[in-house]
Amino acid sequence: MGRLSPLFAPETIAVVGATDRDGAVGRAILENLQAEFDGDVLAINPNRESVLGLECYPDVQQAPVADLAVVVVPPPIVLESIRALGEQGTKDIVVITAGFAETGADGADREQQLRDLAEEYDLNIVGPNSLGVMSTPVGMNATFGPESAQEGSIAFMSQSGAFITAVLDWANEQDIGFRDVVSLGNKAVLDETDFVREWGGDPETDVVIGYLESIQDGEAFVQTAREVTDETPIVLVKSGRTDAGAQAASSHTGAIAGSERAYEAGLEQAGVVRASSVQELFDYARALSGLPEPESDGVAVVTNAGGPGVLTTDAVGDSQLRMADFTDETIDRLAEAMPDEANVYNPIDAIGDADVDRFGDALEIALEDPNVGAAVVVSAPTAVLEYDKLAETVIEKRDVYEKPVITCMMGGERARAAEEVLREFGIPNYFDPSRAVSSLDTLARYRDIRERTVDEPTTFDVDRERAREILARAESRDDNRLGVESMDLLEAYGIPTPTGEIVDDPDRAHEVAKAIDGNVVMKIVSPDITHKSDIGGVKVGVEDDEVEDAYEDLVSRARNYQPDATILGVQVQEMIDLESTTETIVGMNRDPQFGPLLLFGLGGIFVEILQDTSVRVAPIGEGEAREMVDEIDAAPLLRGARGRDPADVEAIIDTIQRLSQLVTDFPAILELDVNPLVAGPDGVQAIDLRLTVDTEQL
Amino acid sequence: MGRLSPLFAPETIAVVGATDRDGAVGRAILENLQAEFDGDVLAINPNRESVLGLECYPDVQQAPVADLAVVVVPPPIVLESIRALGEQGTKDIVVITAGFAETGADGADREQQLRDLAEEYDLNIVGPNSLGVMSTPVGMNATFGPESAQEGSIAFMSQSGAFITAVLDWANEQDIGFRDVVSLGNKAVLDETDFVREWGGDPETDVVIGYLESIQDGEAFVQTAREVTDETPIVLVKSGRTDAGAQAASSHTGAIAGSERAYEAGLEQAGVVRASSVQELFDYARALSGLPEPESDGVAVVTNAGGPGVLTTDAVGDSQLRMADFTDETIDRLAEAMPDEANVYNPIDAIGDADVDRFGDALEIALEDPNVGAAVVVSAPTAVLEYDKLAETVIEKRDVYEKPVITCMMGGERARAAEEVLREFGIPNYFDPSRAVSSLDTLARYRDIRERTVDEPTTFDVDRERAREILARAESRDDNRLGVESMDLLEAYGIPTPTGEIVDDPDRAHEVAKAIDGNVVMKIVSPDITHKSDIGGVKVGVEDDEVEDAYEDLVSRARNYQPDATILGVQVQEMIDLESTTETIVGMNRDPQFGPLLLFGLGGIFVEILQDTSVRVAPIGEGEAREMVDEIDAAPLLRGARGRDPADVEAIIDTIQRLSQLVTDFPAILELDVNPLVAGPDGVQAIDLRLTVDTEQL
Repeated sequence: MGRLSPLFAPETIAVVGATDRDGAVGRAILENLQAEFDGDVLAINPNRESVLGLECYPDVQQAPVADLAVVVVPPPIVLESIRALGEQGTKDIVVITAGFAETGADGADREQQLRDLAEEYDLNIVGPNSLGVMSTPVGMNATFGPESAQEGSIAFMSQSGAFITAVLDWANEQDIGFRDVVSLGNKAVLDETDFVREWGGDPETDVVIGYLESIQDGEAFVQTAREVTDETPIVLVKSGRTDAGAQAASSHTGAIAGSERAYEAGLEQAGVVRASSVQELFDYARALSGLPEPESDGVAVVTNAGGPGVLTTDAVGDSQLRMADFTDETIDRLAEAMPDEANVYNPIDAIGDADVDRFGDALEIALEDPNVGAAVVVSAPTAVLEYDKLAETVIEKRDVYEKPVITCMMGGERARAAEEVLREFGIPNYFDPSRAVSSLDTLARYRDIRERTVDEPTTFDVDRERAREILARAESRDDNRLGVESMDLLEAYGIPTPTGEIVDDPDRAHEVAKAIDGNVVMKIVSPDITHKSDIGGVKVGVEDDEVEDAYEDLVSRARNYQPDATILGVQVQEMIDLESTTETIVGMNRDPQFGPLLLFGLGGIFVEILQDTSVRVAPIGEGEAREMVDEIDAAPLLRGARGRDPADVEAIIDTIQRLSQLVTDFPAILELDVNPLVAGPDGVQAIDLRLTVDTEQL
Repeated sequence: MGRLSPLFAPETIAVVGATDRDGAVGRAILENLQAEFDGDVLAINPNRESVLGLECYPDVQQAPVADLAVVVVPPPIVLESIRALGEQGTKDIVVITAGFAETGADGADREQQLRDLAEEYDLNIVGPNSLGVMSTPVGMNATFGPESAQEGSIAFMSQSGAFITAVLDWANEQDIGFRDVVSLGNKAVLDETDFVREWGGDPETDVVIGYLESIQDGEAFVQTAREVTDETPIVLVKSGRTDAGAQAASSHTGAIAGSERAYEAGLEQAGVVRASSVQELFDYARALSGLPEPESDGVAVVTNAGGPGVLTTDAVGDSQLRMADFTDETIDRLAEAMPDEANVYNPIDAIGDADVDRFGDALEIALEDPNVGAAVVVSAPTAVLEYDKLAETVIEKRDVYEKPVITCMMGGERARAAEEVLREFGIPNYFDPSRAVSSLDTLARYRDIRERTVDEPTTFDVDRERAREILARAESRDDNRLGVESMDLLEAYGIPTPTGEIVDDPDRAHEVAKAIDGNVVMKIVSPDITHKSDIGGVKVGVEDDEVEDAYEDLVSRARNYQPDATILGVQVQEMIDLESTTETIVGMNRDPQFGPLLLFGLGGIFVEILQDTSVRVAPIGEGEAREMVDEIDAAPLLRGARGRDPADVEAIIDTIQRLSQLVTDFPAILELDVNPLVAGPDGVQAIDLRLTVDTEQL
């Protein structure tokens, strides 16, 4: 366990603001602590001699030093209480009191002071505006909620206190137990990253789950979660996924959320399993905390009911799992063990008169098959099938073969007792096969996450100093934007650009054109003219002896279009073979939470109309750059579909990585687009560039 | 009620094969009937004097005439029993006995004889291989399952008997009631279409639900369901959606399923609400049977819990519903009624100390807003909120405003009593907001289905006789395929083709070319050469005086490529302006269940790589043809995206409808592709054609 261990295992807890007033939060916390906490509870309140049978200390200074303090005093005296605690040496503090950043400017100011105090005294502060914390191993319920958690191996954090209250009431009914529970509140000091780190280091925590409306520092979270998910699965509901939801979340917590696209990419890169509903959150948590990992994606289905067997097979088809192909030996053994009418191919239909023994035989034979990674037992109630005994058989086989087994013993009352037995042994039972399969799928996906290796970003040999100088040019621009005249920025980072130059007189234009093989492309270069083609500012296939006239024509068109436009010159560039190449786009937007979000797609309609793009949070390694190329729908076009020559995909992957390095090296680059990056059989070339620079960050 | 009414409301039921043998199906049925059936039960068995206290008749002839007979005798004597029943005048028969088409050739033969008997005596036969039927208004449980249904307004059919058993056990626990339940068995005579028609005519049936693995006659089903869904919603789980599932379904029922794409289109056109899991099936059924229809898609969310409120908002964002915009009056009224800290914008956060009255006020104000079509009440348990009272308030407000309200009173034990009260009044309560919203969404979608008008297919003035003659040309072909030489088939149905002709000598080629404005396109025409371009069999932009040489060149290229190829001639055609036009594809495949499945998409990569296509079962009207064009992802390209001139979309819609008429008029057309159909600002032109004809059907 890390530096937060004392928060979850204190020997002494001080309740600052303890009271016996009916309905008061300070009373609820005291009562919850008195109910089961293994250690000592200190009540602090200057207006009481004793509270609920405890001697009352008038203030922090006069009380013994507590390992953990829970602060419930009114907002104006929270800060002085915390200072007193800091002076005394209490390091772990939960601030229940609300009225901080969520209430406006005064509150935000108070929250900043809280943060300063935490820094000054090196305090671990949960909240403010928190429901509190729980830790079942020491019987600690330091919340003002109506329910305590049952013991278990799930660690649970939530940005909504009400969500904890609702979940605990339900989880207790469902026999879902927790190890630690934290209501994050405003996350002024400790946030999701701190708790993920803490729980990742705790061998008794099997799975970390959370309800979050925002992530404070996306980059730190991704880094920490990536390490943690090697050992401990993390399942999150991140709400505010939709536009409507994001607006509601922002009015709930006051936090400005980053884009859903960034969260999606960041959480995926972090190895987090994302749940989109409360049901999924707990289905996944339950599977991950109770079942072994499947070694392969092949699923065997064993049933006494054809229809539900088909439904289960459909659910497997919907998932990333697949129906296992049985070996010939398995088929032979099943054929021998099952009646003639049975189906011995997967799904195994042991037919309606199957008893527990026949189910057991079928399950055993299936689990012994090397192609089977996991099994689903699906049953409809019949006169000959005892659900309780079936549950025992499933548990037994699961233990022998150490493969995950999930059940759909369909039915109501009839299934309840069996369900409880199964649950006790970590096997979830669902009425709906699709939930069962989706839980198995999550186990397999978490296995993939654990097994995947994320490459370190390649460090290319680049000219960083030259890049900085080029970016500094933005200082002279009104709008901090750079364009095609700054293509040397890409060159500095080793991204190929066409041969050419920006020139400011016709003679030089002619010289440049002559040095280039074949005809050239000429474009007006002006930060004020964005749609060059529309004003005739681009000329393609200009022959050497037409270059001077073309120069004059381009400049006069620009002048006519906008007399006061700043004209930086005319670009003279080699012609790119557009027939055998494909236009792609590589870009970056800086997300408030996750930082640089890289984007890749094919140009034109693919991005604008079909929105066929892939994104990743930078920095990324080669593997992730390759995924970006592979996961767009139109990827086959680059690989040589429809008789085309395949584009040099390695060169695209190289470019994405170099861009990743560029935007990571320079936080000053706020957004950047290489559009198009033309990709052909012989490599790539960046044709146009736009970027926005925050020169103060240079 | 239609012609099946007696099946569900018999006064006398004969059990043919009644027995008291322990574990026998004939005993289980008799016991189930004796338990609650309002009418008389006749036991028929030649080997017993009496069975379970009933006098036993030796055979059908010697028993009184029954309204309904349930046949459970062994397979070899099923047919003679049915003949006897037919002779006696019993019209409604349920065949429980298995061992028919599901078991092989002998069984299939027996099933055909069963079908013949039904025809001969005009019998309504359910099964064979059925679990039986139930009808709660008369207390009839004529199944051998272990559970009876509770009374209710849901009609339920299933192609899996085990699915019925599993569902009833669970539904009884959940207090879900049914009106009629039918186990369809092998569907030898009566199938899903018959029951949909029957229940559609029954005013006491609020919703029809079903589990199906196949649909016997897709066209009949679509037609019937379309009428029924004007009054009564139909919710179906059609399993075998995925490749794996389809394979499992086919080995379960022996039925060859049509393509999932056809089912998807056919069910959608039929107005069926499709559920993808058991949970969805019953969530939707419950909502549709208990709640009023929302007049608009605007949803109000009322909560005491910020986090769950955001989750609910996300769920609305995921659905086709939207968060309602409150009127200024609503906002003012809420601001007055709620405390300062509350959020009076949607989602309404009445904050943690909200009691039932405050919830009630917020809900009332929201439901009075004309922009609100439905509401979700979301609550976390708190000390001040009594769930039972909140349930009463919700029911009361729902009744006053007649708008659908769904609840998420989150919690476990704490919520159970309230949940039961709500359920009794038709309001589902869910722990998970996403399920609540998805149920509301289904109500709104069913409203859309009810309100939509499906145009009758336009009947164009076409030359059907000429089309028949052209199709008959396939008789002389080895492979029944026709190609570009049959473009006059399209002309006969009014689909534009370029000016031109297929000629078989160079002089005629020259004459045709001269009659055409501008240069021409020339293509070799041979059923044996499919990839014309690859062998240089296409020449574009041929000038008039080059036409004769081009003719010779095309023919010799074809001869060189394949000396024995049948060469039908050379097509000489006007040039199409490919710059300002877009290639589209219109095609048809005949599905085994649903008949002609029309397809539309853009040509090239859009169909081949992006699979961006829309499908409908023909015949279709203008509205559906328009939907086909609008719903492809690339539709904006036709509407004039990226500075292009918009294509003549009306001409595309016209072409799709004419093709619909063509393939409906000629079942002999097995498949057909117009590829490309070039669409430009001034209309469309079919450039190439391939079709396969079953000449025996001409």
